[in-house]
Amino acid sequence: MTNPTSMTWQAANDPRRKSWVESANDPASDFPIQNLPFGVFSDNHNATPRVGVAIGDRIVDLAALADNGLLPSGPDVFACASLNRFIGLGQAQWRAVRAQLSSLLDANTASLRDDASLREKALVAQADARMHLPVEIPGYTDFYSSKEHATNVGSMFRDPKNALLPNWLEIPIGYNGRASSVVVSETPVRRPNGQIKTPDSDRPIYSPCRKLDIELETGFIVGTNTTLGEPVACEQAEAHIFGMVLLNDWSARDIQQWEYVPLGPFNSKGFATTISPWIVTLDALDPFRCAQPEQSPQPLPYLRHAGRHGFDIQLEVHLHGAGEPETSTICRTNFKYMYWTMAQQLAHHTASGCNLRVGDLMGSGTISGATPDSCGSLLESTWNGQRPLALPSGNTRAFLQDGDEVAIRGWCQGDGYRVGFGTCSGKILPAPELA
Amino acid sequence: MTNPTSMTWQAANDPRRKSWVESANDPASDFPIQNLPFGVFSDNHNATPRVGVAIGDRIVDLAALADNGLLPSGPDVFACASLNRFIGLGQAQWRAVRAQLSSLLDANTASLRDDASLREKALVAQADARMHLPVEIPGYTDFYSSKEHATNVGSMFRDPKNALLPNWLEIPIGYNGRASSVVVSETPVRRPNGQIKTPDSDRPIYSPCRKLDIELETGFIVGTNTTLGEPVACEQAEAHIFGMVLLNDWSARDIQQWEYVPLGPFNSKGFATTISPWIVTLDALDPFRCAQPEQSPQPLPYLRHAGRHGFDIQLEVHLHGAGEPETSTICRTNFKYMYWTMAQQLAHHTASGCNLRVGDLMGSGTISGATPDSCGSLLESTWNGQRPLALPSGNTRAFLQDGDEVAIRGWCQGDGYRVGFGTCSGKILPAPELA
Repeated sequence: MTNPTSMTWQAANDPRRKSWVESANDPASDFPIQNLPFGVFSDNHNATPRVGVAIGDRIVDLAALADNGLLPSGPDVFACASLNRFIGLGQAQWRAVRAQLSSLLDANTASLRDDASLREKALVAQADARMHLPVEIPGYTDFYSSKEHATNVGSMFRDPKNALLPNWLEIPIGYNGRASSVVVSETPVRRPNGQIKTPDSDRPIYSPCRKLDIELETGFIVGTNTTLGEPVACEQAEAHIFGMVLLNDWSARDIQQWEYVPLGPFNSKGFATTISPWIVTLDALDPFRCAQPEQSPQPLPYLRHAGRHGFDIQLEVHLHGAGEPETSTICRTNFKYMYWTMAQQLAHHTASGCNLRVGDLMGSGTISGATPDSCGSLLESTWNGQRPLALPSGNTRAFLQDGDEVAIRGWCQGDGYRVGFGTCSGKILPAPELA
Repeated sequence: MTNPTSMTWQAANDPRRKSWVESANDPASDFPIQNLPFGVFSDNHNATPRVGVAIGDRIVDLAALADNGLLPSGPDVFACASLNRFIGLGQAQWRAVRAQLSSLLDANTASLRDDASLREKALVAQADARMHLPVEIPGYTDFYSSKEHATNVGSMFRDPKNALLPNWLEIPIGYNGRASSVVVSETPVRRPNGQIKTPDSDRPIYSPCRKLDIELETGFIVGTNTTLGEPVACEQAEAHIFGMVLLNDWSARDIQQWEYVPLGPFNSKGFATTISPWIVTLDALDPFRCAQPEQSPQPLPYLRHAGRHGFDIQLEVHLHGAGEPETSTICRTNFKYMYWTMAQQLAHHTASGCNLRVGDLMGSGTISGATPDSCGSLLESTWNGQRPLALPSGNTRAFLQDGDEVAIRGWCQGDGYRVGFGTCSGKILPAPELA
């Protein structure tokens, strides 16, 4: 490779940096030079999925750059249909590659900027690209770490007086999800069939879900393989995280309510989980750290960490109802409200000795604020359908209808720029016909 | 390849067949010519893991046979550290390879029997081999399909009067387990640390598990990739199953009781799950089909299948307590008591549209009979520790101690032979020291 940059990973976050990719300097772009999120894409000219980084309205083809010796990692880790090989190289290499990209894309760096032929090969318009699932996901775990969400659900499904179960303030409660059905943004989501028990009948029916819902979440991607039997200390946990995505944990509430006792949600969740295509590195999010909410009681020692482990990430849910003239914003909230931190989730997950693998996906759990317009699920914002949302046409929505399209957006607001996640979207298809 | 056999897969089950591998004709061998289970092994002469089939006290090296053109599948699917590629070829190929092996190993077939040089290369003593995890497991699901077990656990942890929850007779209840910590038989199991809540304290402690338990289960290995959004019909479900293993779902009861509400078991199970190294094909189990228990109420239509879908598999749990002079048999039961069938489990799993992948592992749930000596967990046989088991020395066991070794055995009894699973064992190591 030529001229590896000597810049630190922190220097890549400097708010003053500009790129020669002009669209990256638009204050409304999710992908300024301070972000540089990783994904997997293909395009009309080259249908082979490979690793890319978003910059403005372009994608930098890392396989092409590495072919030209411009990156500190070789093309073998970028000419891949998933990021797992690159991520498996470890944090030092993640940082070296991001710093090198920051240098190559800097307005003042000539090497790529002034090489028309290489630019032609290595820069692809996002509008012409198809995004793929960025990682092979060996394991998917979903947590339940918003106090407001857990309180709302507990009030509806169990007992309003004891909505928060006794273990909730001690354990970052989580469960194993289904990895096979995690799909990338824009993949259509088929309404599931399943067992539904109505109060007026003795036996359940098998029917298309009637209470199809979203769950606004983020997820983090594990960056290291850990050893079975060896817990990760909470203070070290963030070094095991590669980055974050937006996540929609589609949920069939009627199926869930009937099936979930005593072993937890299963078919009500396993039909689809959508993630955004770009993984924003934890390094790019570093300037947006904030204190997590105060935790009382103080967590047990294995869940303690000094410093700031919250992140100020603004989140919105947009619903384009089938047949509606326009999109409605049905939720505005923030990741910083989460009670349990990602580091605590990871430390708890490994506390029993359970091992992690590169590419593991860990969902935050539904992110809700304290008000109805900050609820991350329709279950909460419509209070189990009792208070339907008004749509632009005057129609209402208690739960999702076929043809509805949901998009989650998320970004960190900097001074004159934003570090964004792009979009995590999906459109509802009708349920398969019953046999 | 030379001379593919024209025998049917059923002919390989003929009880009259004998092998020129003499040890396979011992009526007590788990691996007669009627069995031919698949696994992955390495040995002192060749440390590279590859696919093999057990016959008597030997292993047939399928990579070596395929190299010599003796199998209908090429060496690329057998010179592998997992069975996934071979299984991915589909049922017709599983059957062709098993039939060809049955023919090659038949007492009356000379080709391999009389070729000393090839025999030397292709037959390895099990005593000299190391067994590996037979499949890469993309997803691990654990069911809860023994009525006796669900009733016992419900009585202890919830309400003896309503031990069986209302959904249990309608749904083959299951949950997603943790695939990363599935290990092969003989891998030591480290006692987990975790949160334990005792009744006499306001807050939980973080401590080594004090109620470490086993769960006697079987598991089946999924043989096909299915499509997201497309359920598998119950009548077709068995065609998607490659074979079965023994499974020990190690469980930390004290951690489980505190953590499991409302999203199910997590750290109490995720520290280790042990499976036996040999996958006994569903074809080899076919002669041991029996009727499943009567199901009342009749299941919903998507869970109905004509015919016999139970399997008569005798199961035992052996405990060699630390310091004990000998092994005790602490459980004798049978897979045929399972209320929900494997076909129903698979059909239910996909009923929402959830897709399956080659190598997915699905545990049966703890297999208990109606009497204390047929309970598949110590939780049940000692009634949560209140009635400890007597060991040979006069010592007792309520739950597992460090140094205890547990082995599950399972076999189908034929007339003069048995189709066995070998052993699924593990020894308990002390918990990691608390930081």
